[in-house]
Amino acid sequence: MGHRAAVIGAGHTRFGVLEEGPRSLVRAAVNQAIGSVDKGIERRSIGRGYLATLGFGGWQIGNASALLGEEAGVPGLPSARVENACASGGFALHEAVNAIRSGEAEVALVVGLEKMTDVSNARRRFWLGVSGDTEWERQAGLTFAGVYGLIADRYLSVHSVPRAALGAVAVKNHANGALNSNAHFQKAVTPEQVAAAPRVADPLGVYDCCPVSDGAAALLLASPDIAPRFTDTPIYIDGIGASSDSLAVQERADLTRFDATRRAAESAFRSADTERSKVSFLEVHDCFTIAELLGLEDLGFAGRGEAGALTLSGATARDGRLPVNPDGGLKAKGHPIGATGVSQAYEVFLQLRGTAGARQVPNARTALTHNVGGAGATAAVTIFSVG
Amino acid sequence: MGHRAAVIGAGHTRFGVLEEGPRSLVRAAVNQAIGSVDKGIERRSIGRGYLATLGFGGWQIGNASALLGEEAGVPGLPSARVENACASGGFALHEAVNAIRSGEAEVALVVGLEKMTDVSNARRRFWLGVSGDTEWERQAGLTFAGVYGLIADRYLSVHSVPRAALGAVAVKNHANGALNSNAHFQKAVTPEQVAAAPRVADPLGVYDCCPVSDGAAALLLASPDIAPRFTDTPIYIDGIGASSDSLAVQERADLTRFDATRRAAESAFRSADTERSKVSFLEVHDCFTIAELLGLEDLGFAGRGEAGALTLSGATARDGRLPVNPDGGLKAKGHPIGATGVSQAYEVFLQLRGTAGARQVPNARTALTHNVGGAGATAAVTIFSVG
Repeated sequence: MGHRAAVIGAGHTRFGVLEEGPRSLVRAAVNQAIGSVDKGIERRSIGRGYLATLGFGGWQIGNASALLGEEAGVPGLPSARVENACASGGFALHEAVNAIRSGEAEVALVVGLEKMTDVSNARRRFWLGVSGDTEWERQAGLTFAGVYGLIADRYLSVHSVPRAALGAVAVKNHANGALNSNAHFQKAVTPEQVAAAPRVADPLGVYDCCPVSDGAAALLLASPDIAPRFTDTPIYIDGIGASSDSLAVQERADLTRFDATRRAAESAFRSADTERSKVSFLEVHDCFTIAELLGLEDLGFAGRGEAGALTLSGATARDGRLPVNPDGGLKAKGHPIGATGVSQAYEVFLQLRGTAGARQVPNARTALTHNVGGAGATAAVTIFSVG
Repeated sequence: MGHRAAVIGAGHTRFGVLEEGPRSLVRAAVNQAIGSVDKGIERRSIGRGYLATLGFGGWQIGNASALLGEEAGVPGLPSARVENACASGGFALHEAVNAIRSGEAEVALVVGLEKMTDVSNARRRFWLGVSGDTEWERQAGLTFAGVYGLIADRYLSVHSVPRAALGAVAVKNHANGALNSNAHFQKAVTPEQVAAAPRVADPLGVYDCCPVSDGAAALLLASPDIAPRFTDTPIYIDGIGASSDSLAVQERADLTRFDATRRAAESAFRSADTERSKVSFLEVHDCFTIAELLGLEDLGFAGRGEAGALTLSGATARDGRLPVNPDGGLKAKGHPIGATGVSQAYEVFLQLRGTAGARQVPNARTALTHNVGGAGATAAVTIFSVG
């Protein structure tokens, strides 16, 4: 199979309620990515750009990718905006891999961005329903938390899983986020705090939901052939897999699994020619705690209905046998929509190079990222390794 | 060089003020594309999908690409939305070419879509300024026609070009549109009518501006190796080129040229390893008549300030030595934003196969499409040939 592309640099802003606007966030993430390239890189060697964003900042909706060239200091950079709701970053990353592998560019830049706070009410209104189905779900008054609340309710009931399993996801991810200086929430929480928190969409409480965050992340990809020019420690992308499902959850046979994730994972493992036992840690799309449990099962790392017990056992903790979301996940790190898929790969970049500091996963050699759009209507899975 | 991808099928709805919603438009264009594949194709052989749309229909903004799998009858189709304002279609096409060439998929579907009429006022308001710069142009009250009006004013003055040159673009493209049963306007106009029309943004009058249209177009791409399974007359994509520029026109050295188009054309010709003299006809992005003149110059088919005389000479007419926009262009065919770049390739598919009927360009062997985002902030150029 061989490597499809190499990550040679990565950058990440703080996630949270930030003063900075979209352009500043892009500039900061890109400059950091360029600065992270061990042997240096000239900006003009960047041949393609991708911007992942839902675009709900109070700024540019259309044609936003043009600002990449301006803010990255690469005049004329051919850039496209890729938008798949919360999976925008994961899909943009795949497009960049294809641009490299097809020979269109030798070096590509992928930036994920969202400015969600301090935007106009009109845009917030669209945002509330923007990642679900319009014709049925939104008209029926379902918010995004509402859809996941229904899924969680069904899941706990069908599989006889205690609510504490959701809480365990929150506690674990907050503990990890407390070690991540870029995280929106850098504070551990107790199972008691989680259980006592106000309900948002039963059975989901405040600590079951990711926050509304601003932030950006950036990656520099190169063709594997030339990666050694830039670094002695490239992180390889070996497999990509993606899929879709009906926009409306009512069209699906089962509320408690995301078939898009299942198909994306199968494709990714096939494309990487590797297997689950080789994966050192996972970045799972935990927009709500229930989503991490579904993700573990749909990705094939837990049997159906068994992810709760796995989590309660401590196996997915940073020091467990299969660490999940060592950066705090969407739950604690924050979820600036378009940035999330790129941010997951940033964490992989740190971990596989052994530079994740206090939250380092020991002996991390292979990692998987899982990025979901809406309530499972799109999913992108990517498999990485260190050479 | 060789061929990068093959177009094996194409479909196109009527453009105009339509009753149909987004899903119906997608379904119709895709079904027509599938039906156009000479030797037939099974839907399940489609391995990747791309949806080009600005997304201003009163429906789904985020995650819209998931509907491709639903409406194309390919459950689980891995799909991404590509959005570069008016150049969305051209950029989505390039991503599909890369997906094929990188080996991610053997067959890919590209759909361009816009539903612009019958949408809410809130969305229309965003739309007015959506393809220009927010921080300066929109705040200063510039509409999209306003920016192009300023450009036209400057162009006519600097190059001493008569306003009749703009009018000649409108007259030519309306004459072509009159032969296109999918066109929004299927009616010829006279130079006198154009000159007497109400001003929109001086010197641009009503007939200098493309309409606000609904519509969709679809393409099926295959890897050149397997294209003969589907058709004996594949249309090859030999070159792709793209570039960007500052979002705000005030940041540019010269109002009367689009450097993004210039760079995109250079890349496309280099990538196709061909030259301008080989090109049989052009699809130029004529959102306003002035844009066709700029396009001819920036693509390298006319010297600076000379596109007006070229047009007045009749050279760009359907029976001229370099036909431009034989389908009527954005001006007469209509401009459903995301659909336009895909629609241009649809016209190439018909023309290079010799199936364009009354508007057939004689002996068309090689064609170029030119798709611009905003006021030149992004541009995609594609070069096609028949084998």
